[in-house]
Amino acid sequence: MERVKVKSYATVANLVCGFDILGMALNEPYDLMEVQLLNEPKVVLHNKDQFGLPEDPENNVAGVVLLSVLESMKHKIGFDVEIQKQIKPGSGLGSSAASAAGAAVAANLLLGNIFSKEDLVRFAMNGEKLASGVKHADNITPCIYGGVSLIRSIFPLDIVSIPAPDLFVTVVHPQIEVKTSDARQILRKQILLKDAIRQWGNIAGLVTGFLKKDFDLISRSLEDVIIEPVRSILIPGFDEVKRKCKEAGVLGGGISGSGPSVFMLSRDRLAASEAENVMKDVYTRIGIGYNTYVTTINQKGVEMVKDGQ
Amino acid sequence: MERVKVKSYATVANLVCGFDILGMALNEPYDLMEVQLLNEPKVVLHNKDQFGLPEDPENNVAGVVLLSVLESMKHKIGFDVEIQKQIKPGSGLGSSAASAAGAAVAANLLLGNIFSKEDLVRFAMNGEKLASGVKHADNITPCIYGGVSLIRSIFPLDIVSIPAPDLFVTVVHPQIEVKTSDARQILRKQILLKDAIRQWGNIAGLVTGFLKKDFDLISRSLEDVIIEPVRSILIPGFDEVKRKCKEAGVLGGGISGSGPSVFMLSRDRLAASEAENVMKDVYTRIGIGYNTYVTTINQKGVEMVKDGQ
Repeated sequence: MERVKVKSYATVANLVCGFDILGMALNEPYDLMEVQLLNEPKVVLHNKDQFGLPEDPENNVAGVVLLSVLESMKHKIGFDVEIQKQIKPGSGLGSSAASAAGAAVAANLLLGNIFSKEDLVRFAMNGEKLASGVKHADNITPCIYGGVSLIRSIFPLDIVSIPAPDLFVTVVHPQIEVKTSDARQILRKQILLKDAIRQWGNIAGLVTGFLKKDFDLISRSLEDVIIEPVRSILIPGFDEVKRKCKEAGVLGGGISGSGPSVFMLSRDRLAASEAENVMKDVYTRIGIGYNTYVTTINQKGVEMVKDGQ
Repeated sequence: MERVKVKSYATVANLVCGFDILGMALNEPYDLMEVQLLNEPKVVLHNKDQFGLPEDPENNVAGVVLLSVLESMKHKIGFDVEIQKQIKPGSGLGSSAASAAGAAVAANLLLGNIFSKEDLVRFAMNGEKLASGVKHADNITPCIYGGVSLIRSIFPLDIVSIPAPDLFVTVVHPQIEVKTSDARQILRKQILLKDAIRQWGNIAGLVTGFLKKDFDLISRSLEDVIIEPVRSILIPGFDEVKRKCKEAGVLGGGISGSGPSVFMLSRDRLAASEAENVMKDVYTRIGIGYNTYVTTINQKGVEMVKDGQ
């Protein structure tokens, strides 16, 4: 294979009470990437979207990932990449992770699957480092593995797939800017032990709820007493969206990654659609532009697509 | 039924990374309680052991639990109780919880099972309040339900049974005194967010490991970066016992409740016995008296026994 096209999916990091350790892949939105193997040790990038991201490989998320793959291959090959991003940078939906993970998986497909998924996470983390200054894996991992991932530890890397029931996910991306670095900076470095205990009760409940397919338990456990109270201040309309979505029958939800996108989980499409209506109403009234998605959990991770798809 | 005899089991609260939210029942040691229904609204206690606990019901853990049952029954009945404790008070093995839970379950059996298990936890928490000043449920719940319990929240009460694989448990109770109130007081009220994140990664890993019967994951997740580093200082020999038990093949372990007992989980009896040898060696050398137990997870909770058992 000399050429491959992949779909790389949006992801929701943190999953309410799972700050920095949980992530989930979505079926929409997704990026498309077409990667070709070259005989020369170089990375050539072509952006096929309107986002104007750098095409210099050392300043591009997919670029640095592919450069790190090149390095591990002792510079005997190169890659030509066309990127058509559909996940907006800065949305809180894992846009940089999709570039990084898509590049790593595509490269591996071209090289005959010589790397493990864990290797790919390690390559892709170089992209996250460029994007946010930190090697984090809570978007990359679900993007590569699909489903819900627990990243118990990064050094050493410890990834656990959490089999989650098929849930509907409603997402709103209000068109405001929340920088990941700002969202991180406003967090307190110290927290109350009693809040931490409540949080780890919730995380234990959420994981158990996923594994036992106990929807009431999932719903009760979707509570974040530490991060959300601080970060939600940066997202106009957050409290109202959350309250009204719960009234509309969603299991629960919160900030996607560091925001500004907000997501809600539902058992059925009806509640998921109702949540979308709530989101549209709130942001129309406030006067902030938005995109919404009603989608499901992606269970496969980055995947090859045939031309024409 | 006018008379009932129950076994009420020792429990391990906290389970390393699950401070204040997880607990596990053991098959040994256990208390024996014999309870008789009376027509008069009073609670009469008889201690059949050497511990010299108060027989005044208002100052006895089982007593206050039964008084609260009486109150809910509008004082139309009473109980006569013989208690033969085998779980030493102050061992960190849920001695007060065994009294409280045993009393609640025995009363319910005599009353024809009119209360739910959750009701029994609520009654039994009155006993924990007397013993430690706080209504906590992380010993009572596994004592009543058996197995491993998650107490996601106390107000409102939210109990989740975590199906755990059959594991061996080795326990050493060094004969030193660690008061629960002291063990609680030395904890910092504030903790670092980064430590909390590591802890909730571990708790998510432990619960997932139990549910997926992934023994390596259980082992990796049996890590406590918040409570153990502080409390283990109160337990001579702790670090050595833990290190040598891991070398001997246990999955992991830590302080039982607030100590001084230390427990280790193993997949097989051989590792569990090796751990017992380690414990005996260390405390013999240090010159501190001890009891050890090599047992398994109790999966049933407090249960009725026939006379003669």
